Amino acid sequence: MLIITQGTGYISSYFRKMVSIVILGTGNVAQNLFESLYQNDEVNLVAVVGRSVNSLAFFKDRTEITTDWTNLPKADIYIMAIKDDAIFKVSEKLEINGLLVHTSGAVSIDALSKHAHTGVCYPLQTFTKNKILEFKNIPICIEAKKEKDLTLLKTVAQMVSGTVEHINSSQRKALHVSAVFVNNFTNHLFGIGKQICEQNDMDFTLLKPLIKETVEKLDVLTPKQAQTGPARRGDQKTLHSHLQLLKEDQHRQIYKLLSNAIKAAYGEKL
Amino acid sequence: MLIITQGTGYISSYFRKMVSIVILGTGNVAQNLFESLYQNDEVNLVAVVGRSVNSLAFFKDRTEITTDWTNLPKADIYIMAIKDDAIFKVSEKLEINGLLVHTSGAVSIDALSKHAHTGVCYPLQTFTKNKILEFKNIPICIEAKKEKDLTLLKTVAQMVSGTVEHINSSQRKALHVSAVFVNNFTNHLFGIGKQICEQNDMDFTLLKPLIKETVEKLDVLTPKQAQTGPARRGDQKTLHSHLQLLKEDQHRQIYKLLSNAIKAAYGEKL
Repeated sequence: MLIITQGTGYISSYFRKMVSIVILGTGNVAQNLFESLYQNDEVNLVAVVGRSVNSLAFFKDRTEITTDWTNLPKADIYIMAIKDDAIFKVSEKLEINGLLVHTSGAVSIDALSKHAHTGVCYPLQTFTKNKILEFKNIPICIEAKKEKDLTLLKTVAQMVSGTVEHINSSQRKALHVSAVFVNNFTNHLFGIGKQICEQNDMDFTLLKPLIKETVEKLDVLTPKQAQTGPARRGDQKTLHSHLQLLKEDQHRQIYKLLSNAIKAAYGEKL
Repeated sequence: MLIITQGTGYISSYFRKMVSIVILGTGNVAQNLFESLYQNDEVNLVAVVGRSVNSLAFFKDRTEITTDWTNLPKADIYIMAIKDDAIFKVSEKLEINGLLVHTSGAVSIDALSKHAHTGVCYPLQTFTKNKILEFKNIPICIEAKKEKDLTLLKTVAQMVSGTVEHINSSQRKALHVSAVFVNNFTNHLFGIGKQICEQNDMDFTLLKPLIKETVEKLDVLTPKQAQTGPARRGDQKTLHSHLQLLKEDQHRQIYKLLSNAIKAAYGEKL
């Protein structure tokens, strides 16, 4: 165990002992957080709380597991990595004294208002079942009602991630909606690409190098600089021939709306 | 120089000598093709043809450069890497005997019909000025009117790429429209994500790990399996709060249409 003595009394008081953490929830976010915190010498992972023994299988033999949400062990921080809809309801039932944080991009910090010490610890990433990511590369956006809670949360977040941002609730909501555009909607467009390939007896893997390069370009160009294609260059002939080729009405609607959006963004007349 | 003697008389007749190639055009595709072909011992890069000496600066001192499109040197293959709109017009003016191919995803092979030997060599990738990509990883989709021309084209394509697909004109068009969805439209969504971040005093780089993981997921899951987000789980509350937050009408339109498309794809009622 590392003993860190820092400048402020508050921090150093935390680091005379390890930071003790309880994780509530057993899903992808909980598993990824667990793996990252588990490796850390300055963290004492006290327990993981789940709805069933089955759902806790991932964690057993490495920390205490429990299905009893009403009688939680003492800890400095309680990280609630559960479904958005359940956050308020679960928070109301908890009887704890430490700092309670949730991990959602969409839920207000006020959902936890029953408690004295509250915060949010939103990892900006998409998690996949059975896939553990390197948390060091995942931005964590933090928020807390009280300055001291924020300091503690920041210290813990910096233990797991190289990018910790303090943002307020309205920024977090904006970030969440941005994430919907760049992740959820983008993924749906990949699905449409796959469908069109398969309708024409071609394999979706053909598109993968293009998809990868689309993202790699962002390291050297802004999206605006990187924009290409028939809509960008106002190539009406190609736009019309593509619309004729699309078999599904919804694909045509998406094609039209996004092409018009690109044309508008680059000052072309519609 | 490698001497390859293969089974068919046709192939071996080509490989008793090197394949001689002229590139017409000086843009990103021409530069990337040039770099890849230039390294190849079995290729004799005879010349690059451009509209101005200035535009040919990239190629000079490494091969012959010329701005004279009417008097081209002899070659086995002429690769026309020029703008879609110019392909037919330029093709009509050329006086050559070799195999003439263009590199467009959108233009029919028939745009070259003045010539006896025609084909298409469509690299499925997005190219950036001053960025040379590893062509080995770029799928090349080929097409030719005559079997012998196809064989020659395939041989050359396989010299530069690890993935060479023979597809017909209608498949190529479908592939091109898929590419618009997964590249052009996706990039526009990245631009919207950036805009929303900046409107809320946050840096777009926060979203990059999420964007990268969205693509890396495709190595283990189909887009359909990878789909997450409020539309996927029918979370009306989040959908409505996102719509309220979006400031631009066009962003709201895109948000609605794509959310509805995701809901429809997963069998949710609209």
